[in-house]
Amino acid sequence: MWAELLPVGRDSGSGGYRRFAWTGADQDCRAWFRAQAEARGLAYEVDRNGNQWAWLGDPEAGDAVVTGSHLDSVPDGGAFDGPLGVVSSFAALDELRRRGAEITRPLAITNFGDEEGARFGLACVGSRLTAGLLSKEQAFALRDADGVSLPQAMEAAGHDPGAIGADPERLARIGAFVELHVEQGRALDLSGDRVGIASAIWPHGRWRYDFHGEANHAGTTRLVDRRDPMLAYAETVLAARREAELAGAVATFGKISVEPNGVNAIPSLVRGWLDARAADEVALDQVIDGVRKAAGEYAERHGIDLAVTRESYTPVVEFEHALRDELARILGRATPVLGTGAGHDAGILSGAVPTAMLFVRNPTGVSHSPAESAEEDDCVAGVLALADVLEGLACRR
Amino acid sequence: MWAELLPVGRDSGSGGYRRFAWTGADQDCRAWFRAQAEARGLAYEVDRNGNQWAWLGDPEAGDAVVTGSHLDSVPDGGAFDGPLGVVSSFAALDELRRRGAEITRPLAITNFGDEEGARFGLACVGSRLTAGLLSKEQAFALRDADGVSLPQAMEAAGHDPGAIGADPERLARIGAFVELHVEQGRALDLSGDRVGIASAIWPHGRWRYDFHGEANHAGTTRLVDRRDPMLAYAETVLAARREAELAGAVATFGKISVEPNGVNAIPSLVRGWLDARAADEVALDQVIDGVRKAAGEYAERHGIDLAVTRESYTPVVEFEHALRDELARILGRATPVLGTGAGHDAGILSGAVPTAMLFVRNPTGVSHSPAESAEEDDCVAGVLALADVLEGLACRR
Repeated sequence: MWAELLPVGRDSGSGGYRRFAWTGADQDCRAWFRAQAEARGLAYEVDRNGNQWAWLGDPEAGDAVVTGSHLDSVPDGGAFDGPLGVVSSFAALDELRRRGAEITRPLAITNFGDEEGARFGLACVGSRLTAGLLSKEQAFALRDADGVSLPQAMEAAGHDPGAIGADPERLARIGAFVELHVEQGRALDLSGDRVGIASAIWPHGRWRYDFHGEANHAGTTRLVDRRDPMLAYAETVLAARREAELAGAVATFGKISVEPNGVNAIPSLVRGWLDARAADEVALDQVIDGVRKAAGEYAERHGIDLAVTRESYTPVVEFEHALRDELARILGRATPVLGTGAGHDAGILSGAVPTAMLFVRNPTGVSHSPAESAEEDDCVAGVLALADVLEGLACRR
Repeated sequence: MWAELLPVGRDSGSGGYRRFAWTGADQDCRAWFRAQAEARGLAYEVDRNGNQWAWLGDPEAGDAVVTGSHLDSVPDGGAFDGPLGVVSSFAALDELRRRGAEITRPLAITNFGDEEGARFGLACVGSRLTAGLLSKEQAFALRDADGVSLPQAMEAAGHDPGAIGADPERLARIGAFVELHVEQGRALDLSGDRVGIASAIWPHGRWRYDFHGEANHAGTTRLVDRRDPMLAYAETVLAARREAELAGAVATFGKISVEPNGVNAIPSLVRGWLDARAADEVALDQVIDGVRKAAGEYAERHGIDLAVTRESYTPVVEFEHALRDELARILGRATPVLGTGAGHDAGILSGAVPTAMLFVRNPTGVSHSPAESAEEDDCVAGVLALADVLEGLACRR
């Protein structure tokens, strides 16, 4: 099962994955999902927002147990972020059947669309739409780097964008959602555990910094006559690191776009994206305010026009305590409980549905890179843990 | 004449020009050049390196007077940088004919290919090849951002790249080369003159800084575990400004390329290009050494691998004093004589051919941007000055 998915969307140069929403590589991943569903006799459907579902039992009966994750990737992402959760879901169902477990609740496996936001700049589009946290109008305004809009991309991939939007009826039929994910840090590696349970997702967001200066010739414009936005950007990158250190948070400028981006031209525009996260919202606000202030002061001193746009913000997510405790009961009280700085569809859905997450050990701690890894034994342990959880939740009655 | 050229390669969004070597916009500019040549009964030819020539008189006779410039642009460049020199050359020839001047030396108008280096990263490719300052092997190794090589781009545009390389026979037939160019600064505006004569081109070069770090998740990687090359880049941008101020030079980071360039990914690679120029080579060395040292120290402290590559370097160019004095005699001793920080084909050719430049006033001083400008009266003054120079040089005997 895993072997068929591994080559899809892999860049031969970097060894990383480029599975961006609604592209050919994404379509190949979706075809793989459908084939896995049909091979197991599951009822396959795509919801209004482009998320894939594979059902065992009656979807209309309610109180369903749902598991899954996503198949898309960041640019040059690793093999496990997303796919491990989907593959493990199918494998856990196989394990339940091998055990001869009597499944009494409807069970579904999902692939949420466009979790990483690599193409349109907003993460978790499929689950945000479903949960009503992203309106149809907002989604229609999303564009990729080539100017293609989200609805155009959906249509090109054969999905009708006309009916996207909140889907409360679907959410109301879900009794519990459990997402398994490779750990994006080294906590399990340091504690020596194969599998952990999520406690909370740190509050996090993305802010776009547009520094507008004046394009000019790099060779003939005196320093005093310049309005060079790259200098303001550089000051802001360093300010973000300082503020994150002060607040015990993380802050990153990982994406940049420069106009005209010529070697011998002072830029007219430098656009940088700040990703910031902290254990609580007070600390996050401290970072955001500090970076904004430093950028604004520098921009004002040097004749740069600065516009800061909050592109997304997700408050702290505490996973439902009852479901989390239920998982701890099933997997054993010694199972570690961890917070995470990464956003997930499970976090988006947690406002509407009881939600939990399982993490599988990642010995490098690296994420969003080809160096992301998980040992085969740990992946098997993850599948067995997920099977235990599904058995405990869906086979109780 | 000017009206036909104005819309070619103009970006409707920025109002700037995107005339990159061997693209469709460049081909349109070349077709315009050929049409201008043929409309005047000039003998049209393209040399082995893709430069265009329009001849009046026998090209083989030797001691030719050549004028011209280039038609390609930087990204979002202005209307005048390059084209003003080519348009003024044709207009000056029209003026000579109007005056009934008896032209006794062969006269040619040129459009040198790929002067800005916007596509392949190296400026003055057409004149460098001709002068033997860029070998065929070096030229064949040039690639654009999409991985298209220079010979592939030439072939796609219908030019055979097989014979590119040094062309000393052609240069030996040139007695003088005069390039008219819009000024890329405000010296003429401050002195109140319409036209000036070039004294020298500052030594200048391009250095590529590759900062290699480690891609990782922006939300889950602790600050202490990061090897974030964007921080080293930011420190280096600010160091370049400091060093340039100290040396009375200019230094610019105007172009950047980031991998994977995702909002939630710490970059694996940040590649920045440094453009640096100074009035003399000692000052330039001081800037280059200072920036390199600052970047290296920061990179070493933060686990970043740094590779610095000199992509081009042009020593100081003093235009031939005899020709410069001849121009001053023709145009009047009050004509200002100016140095410039910008590179030109005239600078490249100056090692092989007596070369001079005329500058036309640019009231904004802005260059490489849509805000670049020249008043119509000043452009006419430039044409008349060029006609005077051509008459003085080519009609003497």
